[in-house]
Amino acid sequence: MKVFPYKDIEAKDANEGASKLRVRWLITKDIGAKNFAMRLFEMEPGGHSPFHSHTWEHEVFILEGEGHVVGENKETKFKAGDVVFVAPNDKHQFKNSGKKTVKFLCLVPYMEK
Amino acid sequence: MKVFPYKDIEAKDANEGASKLRVRWLITKDIGAKNFAMRLFEMEPGGHSPFHSHTWEHEVFILEGEGHVVGENKETKFKAGDVVFVAPNDKHQFKNSGKKTVKFLCLVPYMEK
Repeated sequence: MKVFPYKDIEAKDANEGASKLRVRWLITKDIGAKNFAMRLFEMEPGGHSPFHSHTWEHEVFILEGEGHVVGENKETKFKAGDVVFVAPNDKHQFKNSGKKTVKFLCLVPYMEK
Repeated sequence: MKVFPYKDIEAKDANEGASKLRVRWLITKDIGAKNFAMRLFEMEPGGHSPFHSHTWEHEVFILEGEGHVVGENKETKFKAGDVVFVAPNDKHQFKNSGKKTVKFLCLVPYMEK
């Protein structure tokens, strides 16, 4: 069993296509998580994730802040305490349209098992 | 894509062996999550989960409050912002040893796929 503050894990710049977005990989295969990974994202005001899709799902919990999640044909507001489920192949983008840092957990399956 | 406040999902009493513990199943197979489920637990002061083990892991994020997680041979404090990874077959129990409700996310894989 492991217990640690999320800030113990380094925040790194997120992938190409993102802006003002950093990610901490909190729970991964490296500590024995074989099925899915827990990441914590921090997105500054005006920041966004890439607008893209992929074959795996996202399970998201908004910890702090507010913004919009952009889909194929619409934008939906989110705020702290909201849950977001992005199904496989759904186009999606997270945007910080508020004045505070948005923090959210985003969990993804390990697909190759 | 689905976006909803966690409170939209009903809180139900947790399993036998737990006390003052309720669970909301936020993301499940019912909305298309085939690999793992997101649950949110609310544990009142003095409450606890069962002391048990099982063949699947837990990926936990503490949202609010403080308490202890009990393992085979030790207790470890946790507080808001902490991450807990319980490996398969690790004995574990979550206890609210603080004065406020503890809220935590606990994600589990779907094993039968």
